[in-house]
Parts: sequence; structure tokens; C-alpha cells
Amino acid sequence: MTEKLEQVLPGDIEKRSFEIITQELGDRTFDPLEEPVIKRCIHTSADFDYADNLVFSPGAVRKALEAIRSGALIVTDTNMGKAGVSKKTLASFGGEVLCFMADPDVAEAAKREGTTRAVASMRKAAALSRETERPLILAVGNAPTALVEICSLMDAGELSPALVIGVPVGFVNVVAAKELLLERDVPSIVAKGRKGGSNIAAAICNAILYMARDGVK
Amino acid sequence: MTEKLEQVLPGDIEKRSFEIITQELGDRTFDPLEEPVIKRCIHTSADFDYADNLVFSPGAVRKALEAIRSGALIVTDTNMGKAGVSKKTLASFGGEVLCFMADPDVAEAAKREGTTRAVASMRKAAALSRETERPLILAVGNAPTALVEICSLMDAGELSPALVIGVPVGFVNVVAAKELLLERDVPSIVAKGRKGGSNIAAAICNAILYMARDGVK
Repeated sequence: MTEKLEQVLPGDIEKRSFEIITQELGDRTFDPLEEPVIKRCIHTSADFDYADNLVFSPGAVRKALEAIRSGALIVTDTNMGKAGVSKKTLASFGGEVLCFMADPDVAEAAKREGTTRAVASMRKAAALSRETERPLILAVGNAPTALVEICSLMDAGELSPALVIGVPVGFVNVVAAKELLLERDVPSIVAKGRKGGSNIAAAICNAILYMARDGVK
Repeated sequence: MTEKLEQVLPGDIEKRSFEIITQELGDRTFDPLEEPVIKRCIHTSADFDYADNLVFSPGAVRKALEAIRSGALIVTDTNMGKAGVSKKTLASFGGEVLCFMADPDVAEAAKREGTTRAVASMRKAAALSRETERPLILAVGNAPTALVEICSLMDAGELSPALVIGVPVGFVNVVAAKELLLERDVPSIVAKGRKGGSNIAAAICNAILYMARDGVK
């Protein structure tokens, strides 16, 4: 039954996968700090569009590495995104990943303030970051309203994230919300257009976490 | 700041998204039970390739609906996939979603049996299904070795799933593992080629769960 299967040790599959991705990208060159992020998004989706649609603000990955090494909090907009982040690697730097979407206080705040849980959870993240003074990475793979709220909070001086990962997926307000973020002066990694998702948000976090683990400067 | 944003009530965004997907699919027609699955995969990825690469065995969705309505267990091969499945809808039918990948007994079994945790967790799922006699839906979005093991267990008469969702993503043994599954006589939904992922596995589960909730026969 296994005749069609390539004999690759489980521990070597990721390495072999990245070799295939590199081969298929051919002559294309990328910024050395951005390349692992791009390749991990392709690895998690088998979608080479991520070689074209990812936009990095200047120095975004370097700033994210500093934040990770300073014990950053990562806040996601889905529990699925949270589940995908390598908690072991993050914890080795004293960081943790949080998602507030299912928190009762977030549901109450959303109702009281007439908004979405995604918006309320970004407000909670901003408040937590102000209280703890820990660097904050916001990883948005689902809700464009979360990105819009991040922009509003930054404009009001109530939020100053170390990195915004702006990769919500979808068909309504997703493109516009990403454009709003790209107009802001904040370290960001954005998947332009409709594509993205919780898997892509987690893949971007993990690419940066593994660079931090591997001593990339 | 919101001038670029379409004014859509949060509760209407999903409906509007599916309208856009329908519009962009143009004249294409699908089996009425398969269409919601295809569209939800596009919704979760903004990738229209899922209109072409999903393969359904005859009656797969109908059999899955019966399994859901009989209190099926869904077993995923990642915690990310588990996080994405609508547990509320599943629980309303008496079902539950499980992932064994982080279980200590699975790690021990994998070590003892010289295999991967993905394989050991599929063996655990098969054993649980035999013990409980509950219908079993296997949702594989990550590990081709899990699919290969499912085929081996079925060939040995040790596993008879109500549905296998075969959508691992990747570059090594993914295509071959999906082909092995497609040769088997089992209800299946497969994303042919390299694409798939935990998000796609969860989207397929949710499409079927929402059809069950909405009374689709």
C-alpha cells in the first residue's frame, strides 16, 4: 500500500517541504527575515499566492523578534488561531498567547457597547497591554472589525502594538480593513486582498517564534 | 475612517459573503448537498480552488448528516481543527469533537510502536469507536500518515468510519495519501492535490453541522 509514498522520516518532512517550496519559488528572492514567514504561510496552505500578497512594514520582523524575546503577549481573534501558535516556543521566552473571544466579560462588553465580540476583545487586549506594559502582538486572522478597532485605538493613543498581523480572510470589508491598517504607522504584516485566516495568522506567529528560537538576529 | 467600509450588520456578513461567493462562481452548478460544503471551504480560505479540488464519494454528505444526527464523534488530527469545529451545534445532536494529539498515552503509544502521534491517535480513535459503537467522523487536515493509517485500519477490518474528511495540506506524501483513501470504499470528502488544512477540515465539519441544524434531509 505504501509504494506511492516517499520514504521520509517524520522529523524530516518539514525540512523536505521547505526544500520543495524553495525549489518551486525558483529565482525569486526575498528579504532574509521575511522569507521564512512567506514560506511558512505557503507551507500551511499550499497556496503560493502568499509569495505575492504578504506586505511587511519596514523592519516588522526584526521588531517582532525583539518583542518575542521580551516576553510578548500574542492576542488572537479566534481560538483556532490560538490553538495553532507554538505555545512551547513562546513560553521559552516568557510569552503567552491569549484569545478573549469566548470570555464572558467580552460578550457582556460587546452587548453593552453595541459592538462585536471581536472589537470588545481588541479593547480588552489594549487595556491589558497598558496595564502590564508587556509588548503586544495582535494576530487577526478572522475579523475585519478587529483590525478597524485596532486602527481606532491606535489613532486615539490607547494602543501601541509591537506588531499587528492583519490577515483576516473573507469577502466583506476584509480588503478595506487591511488598507486602513496599511495607512497606519505601526509594524505590520498584512496579506493583501481577501486571503488569510487563522491558520495564516498562526503560521506567521510560528515563523517568527522559530526564528527567535534559532537565534536569528 | 470607515468610508471605505461597507455597512453590513455583523450578523449579515456571513450571508453577504456567501452571496458574493455564489455570484463569483457564476454558472457553475453543484450537487445541492455538496454545494454548502464547497462554498464554506471557499468562505474560510477565499480560495476558489476548492470549487474544483473537492471530491465527494457517492452520498457522502447524506451519510455524514445521518451520523451527526446519531450523535457522532468527530476526531481531528490537530487541536487547531478541533478548535474550529462548532461544538455548540455538534452538542445539540449529542456529539462531541476530540483530538488525541496532545494526549500522554498517544505520545507513549507512538514511542512504543515506533510511529507518529498522528498514527497513534487514529488507532485510539478506532478503538474508541469500536468500544462505544458511536458513528465516527475522522477529520484529517494535517497529517498524511493519519490518512494512511486510516486506510490500513479499514483494510484490517478494525475501523469503519461514517465519513473520512481527507484534507491534509502539504508537499510530502499528501497527494499519495489522498489517492490511497480515494481507492477505498468509504464515505469520504477529499481535497485532491496539495491543498487543505485544519481550517478546511473544520469548515467541512461545520458545513455539514449547519445543514443538520437547518433540517436539510
